[in-house]
Amino acid sequence: MSMDRLIEKIVATQNPTVVGLDPKLDYIPGYIKEAAFAQYGYTLEGAAAAFLQFNKDIIDAVCDIVPAIKPQAAYYEALGWQGVKCLYETILYAHSKRMFVITDGKRNDIGSTMEAYADAHLGTTRVGEEIIAPFNGDALTVNGYLGTDGIKPLLDICNRYDKGIFVLAKTSNPSSGELQDREIDGEPVYHYMCRMCESWGESTYSKYGYSAVGAVAGATYPEQLAILRKDMPHTFFLIPGYGAQGGGAAGLVGGFDERGLGGIVNSSRGIICAWKKSGRPETEHALAARDEALRMREDITSHLPKIQL
Amino acid sequence: MSMDRLIEKIVATQNPTVVGLDPKLDYIPGYIKEAAFAQYGYTLEGAAAAFLQFNKDIIDAVCDIVPAIKPQAAYYEALGWQGVKCLYETILYAHSKRMFVITDGKRNDIGSTMEAYADAHLGTTRVGEEIIAPFNGDALTVNGYLGTDGIKPLLDICNRYDKGIFVLAKTSNPSSGELQDREIDGEPVYHYMCRMCESWGESTYSKYGYSAVGAVAGATYPEQLAILRKDMPHTFFLIPGYGAQGGGAAGLVGGFDERGLGGIVNSSRGIICAWKKSGRPETEHALAARDEALRMREDITSHLPKIQL
Repeated sequence: MSMDRLIEKIVATQNPTVVGLDPKLDYIPGYIKEAAFAQYGYTLEGAAAAFLQFNKDIIDAVCDIVPAIKPQAAYYEALGWQGVKCLYETILYAHSKRMFVITDGKRNDIGSTMEAYADAHLGTTRVGEEIIAPFNGDALTVNGYLGTDGIKPLLDICNRYDKGIFVLAKTSNPSSGELQDREIDGEPVYHYMCRMCESWGESTYSKYGYSAVGAVAGATYPEQLAILRKDMPHTFFLIPGYGAQGGGAAGLVGGFDERGLGGIVNSSRGIICAWKKSGRPETEHALAARDEALRMREDITSHLPKIQL
Repeated sequence: MSMDRLIEKIVATQNPTVVGLDPKLDYIPGYIKEAAFAQYGYTLEGAAAAFLQFNKDIIDAVCDIVPAIKPQAAYYEALGWQGVKCLYETILYAHSKRMFVITDGKRNDIGSTMEAYADAHLGTTRVGEEIIAPFNGDALTVNGYLGTDGIKPLLDICNRYDKGIFVLAKTSNPSSGELQDREIDGEPVYHYMCRMCESWGESTYSKYGYSAVGAVAGATYPEQLAILRKDMPHTFFLIPGYGAQGGGAAGLVGGFDERGLGGIVNSSRGIICAWKKSGRPETEHALAARDEALRMREDITSHLPKIQL
């Protein structure tokens, strides 16, 4: 199961964090953009070339100390198909550096359509006799509002290709409670959703005790995170909201088990924009990202037991 | 507001239906695929070329009798960035034929990221001094699980560019009730979600009484559809599930108002695969789609009052 591959990388790097590759042109040093625009003009292709160079720099700088990247599909789609091509190339490059890739797409649909998303992001598409992996992420974030039909096709693909999913349970944004905290027969919606994750994952337990069906549970809601950890022992958590969104390291502890496993904490802007606050010249943006990734690892692991299998 | 443009097209064509352009290689006549593979090989590019030709044929055949198309993003993503390029080209072609385009992406995320999705699918991206519309749909389907933060950025874009959104309320699939029918203080989740749509749309009422914030409510649940119509007078419905999924025309009536407005019914496979059942040669696949689109219009409008403003 896919969570095993992720867990093994977390243990090897002693780092339960993931770098969110959420590029915007404003985040990218001028020299990278100038080179891209000089070659491609002020076009979506030019902007995508800048994104790719920026991403490669960061991947090069962190691949020995961070287990995974999480590209957010929205930022790539904002550059049209040219940006989506950059998403594909970013995943390819991260794999060449042996990083685990969580594609953050929050995809969701009815069963027959969800099969297409599963093929697209985790599986393969057949063209004639050719079998091609269109994006080839290792895990995908998904939204479970449509229920089991919208999850089942993903499980088949997870089993076949050793991949995983993370279902939105309690998101990190301020208004997440409008629906997620409301109660159904005394149980909050986020808890019910996470309980569905436990159930969907049942047939996929891995050797380290976690299933292929993880959940998204925000660092900005530490109390809920701790409740979910206790009640959902087989559900691995993707934990957004650390840093820029306000979630602190101490509050994250509740998301982990006694082996220091069970969660992976995302930081996006905090790492990829670190160069702006670092005092380093912009040409050292990737070193600033590495510094911040190391600081984040220290900050989070200082609150956890030693990470071990 | 965007729903005005859609409503005017519905009245002009006397047709409250939308053709779902959800291509798969299995749905496409052999002669189209052979031509595409001859030119591009058995590649994602070749498959995307077949999708595009198939879509153009259908758009040509229905653009005078159908107001809108609804390409489902999943099927394009299943061909990688090459498929996403085909999505872009399909939207461009539909606009050249003056059709309204509902991009079915069911996107969702926290506020800052939702801005990127809004820019991508409905708005524009700035590159240097250039302002570029990456996909330029007229409306986008979205998932409201994250609450107001995840909707607000879309409203800004809807106002600026005269676009609309459809938020998932009651989806057409068998397991939709697992969460959507559960009750919060005696109110089903789908009803609560639709009530949020009414509230999100408040500042965007258009001249025909509907806001820019529509909702998805499945034809397979006619009772819920009728309740939602009565309780949400400003929310325009995108109604999937007709035909292949089992929703009949008589059950749809409850989704419409006394002017025959308030909803648009989708059919995907029923129309684009009509050629397989039609007895026509495969080279007439688009004529078979037109026949079925006309039959569907007759089937649905025969249950409605005359459509008028």
